[in-house]
Amino acid sequence: MLATPQFAHWDEPLTLSSGAVLRAYDLAFETYGTLNADRSNAVLICHALNASHHVAGTYPDDPDNRGWWDNMVGPGKPVDTDKFFVIGVNNLGSCFGSSGPTTTNPDTGKVWGADFPLVTVEDWVDSHARLLDRLGIQSLAAVMGGSLGGMQALCWAIRYPQRVRHALVIAAAPNLSAQNIAFNEVARQAIMSDPAFHGGHFAEKSTIPRDGLTVARMIGHITYISDDQMESKFGRGLREGLKFSFAPEFQIESYLRYQGEKFSEYYDANTYLRVTKALDYFDPARATNGDLAAALSPAQAKFLVVSFTTDWRFSPARSREIVTALLDGNKDVAYAEVNAPHGHDAFLLDNPQYHAVVRRFLQRVAA
Amino acid sequence: MLATPQFAHWDEPLTLSSGAVLRAYDLAFETYGTLNADRSNAVLICHALNASHHVAGTYPDDPDNRGWWDNMVGPGKPVDTDKFFVIGVNNLGSCFGSSGPTTTNPDTGKVWGADFPLVTVEDWVDSHARLLDRLGIQSLAAVMGGSLGGMQALCWAIRYPQRVRHALVIAAAPNLSAQNIAFNEVARQAIMSDPAFHGGHFAEKSTIPRDGLTVARMIGHITYISDDQMESKFGRGLREGLKFSFAPEFQIESYLRYQGEKFSEYYDANTYLRVTKALDYFDPARATNGDLAAALSPAQAKFLVVSFTTDWRFSPARSREIVTALLDGNKDVAYAEVNAPHGHDAFLLDNPQYHAVVRRFLQRVAA
Repeated sequence: MLATPQFAHWDEPLTLSSGAVLRAYDLAFETYGTLNADRSNAVLICHALNASHHVAGTYPDDPDNRGWWDNMVGPGKPVDTDKFFVIGVNNLGSCFGSSGPTTTNPDTGKVWGADFPLVTVEDWVDSHARLLDRLGIQSLAAVMGGSLGGMQALCWAIRYPQRVRHALVIAAAPNLSAQNIAFNEVARQAIMSDPAFHGGHFAEKSTIPRDGLTVARMIGHITYISDDQMESKFGRGLREGLKFSFAPEFQIESYLRYQGEKFSEYYDANTYLRVTKALDYFDPARATNGDLAAALSPAQAKFLVVSFTTDWRFSPARSREIVTALLDGNKDVAYAEVNAPHGHDAFLLDNPQYHAVVRRFLQRVAA
Repeated sequence: MLATPQFAHWDEPLTLSSGAVLRAYDLAFETYGTLNADRSNAVLICHALNASHHVAGTYPDDPDNRGWWDNMVGPGKPVDTDKFFVIGVNNLGSCFGSSGPTTTNPDTGKVWGADFPLVTVEDWVDSHARLLDRLGIQSLAAVMGGSLGGMQALCWAIRYPQRVRHALVIAAAPNLSAQNIAFNEVARQAIMSDPAFHGGHFAEKSTIPRDGLTVARMIGHITYISDDQMESKFGRGLREGLKFSFAPEFQIESYLRYQGEKFSEYYDANTYLRVTKALDYFDPARATNGDLAAALSPAQAKFLVVSFTTDWRFSPARSREIVTALLDGNKDVAYAEVNAPHGHDAFLLDNPQYHAVVRRFLQRVAA
């Protein structure tokens, strides 16, 4: 399947949760499959931390650049593009095409950098709703995402109840725990204390806070993988025997450094800060004094909630909080706790049980 | 109880696990209680990452500087200094008095800094054995420690079986898991990538890699506390409402930054690197092809192994590995899994169940 990035521009200002106003902005998106005549078969895919609008397929001129959820989305796949019109959209504040710290501030003609406002899950959902307007889609057959993407799906169901018929909330949580916030904060500190960060204005200095980003990603990566998975993949395996030096000696060290360094080459530091803040802020029950069922009460969608047994970032217990709150509000919800050794990253992987659950749910949506 | 730091100097070279030789070195230590006539009532306390020889009591001129295990060690306390002669000793490579990166290299007359060799748990035990020789103590009534200190106690029992009658191995593990090593490696990267680190030669530059140390400590601190404890202490509590800024907004953020910054003011970066490496290297079963029971087979001590239910750094399962290996070798071992909400840090806290277990064990030792 071939993908084509598209861009849409808005001149209508967007007021963000913070009160800041984006005077004009762009969204990058891709679509797969065909919108049916009554415009009822659209599925919106929401992305997590470091992904983008490139959900599935490859580009004609870049055949190795496969979409981040290509095992899930495509012809005959669980999200079947023979039946659904699938939309992937890059979040505001990201660094992959939509307006964000790496794009140009229309008011100054300079790169936004640190001046790009903080954005929230609600802001993303609002901006994506405008994309649906632009595409002539009143109501989504389904909105779907994993991790931070799952939070967006949850937010959609609350914020635009009439526009969401089904919501797939995968490997998510109703909010971040203190420990989740703690990990994010350490990652941010690593970035912000890198002298090359220059308070976020590193583009003007022609530098990149690569060391800070590397450490930030290493921290994050630890939380994406289960303890057991890390143990079975690397254990205490050495690269070449004990060297008594600070060069990587254990395989897990070189693996993590590689992951961190690779990330630091393509991801924007200001984006990282904003995305982790959006995660920290997400808390639909804040508006209802901590009552998640009350927060979810506007939702009209049918839900599928999926968690993974070894996910310790957003554990099954956190998904069950969502399920319980939905049941308390007499919502229609199915829940699957998938056996997977991989930890949080399982939502991106090709797990037969997981894919079968999503496939069956969406087959009923299509029917 | 008043404490008096003491210092001992050695001119006999010490060959380290790495093959490097310390030509001369000092150890800082304190003792509490009185050595009995047959020199049979000595208890050696081994310290963990950021502690020292100052185990109990206060200094006459610094009454607020209480020993790190003062709730455990003292007259009438679980480690009863009315019965035992208790020794606290600062590990080589530390920054609190024993030879280490912050002391003077006798060969150059300059601060060791990055040139201080890497040390292992075995090296510490060897150097502490020499301290016992110096004190005229042939055999320990008990060796005891928590976390990295518990690993030293375990090592003592293996390496000097005739000199250890009892070993208390608390909140420890037979080795670090891949995830444990991963957290250490991220902390090291944070330090080493701080431009103020200067490859460890920061003293010569009159700088301190404070930002790197801060991030390193923040990472460590997350792993010392249980998820639940962090949640009940901080949860999603805000300092002053949402500000949409990168200044600390959540209470957990300011708490972690405070812990990190405080640590960066007194702890040496080169020491941090070496202590985390000593943790990574510790693996008594490496010499026996992974067979921990075989590694422990020389031990003659009676063991008490203690773990804490919510410790996710060195979980009860890791302590049970030690217990199982000891039982497989027909060793004398008691095991307590203490209910505690605090996570790894519980070994430092005044938990009645925990202290009662230690007290009873040592009462039998004294009898």
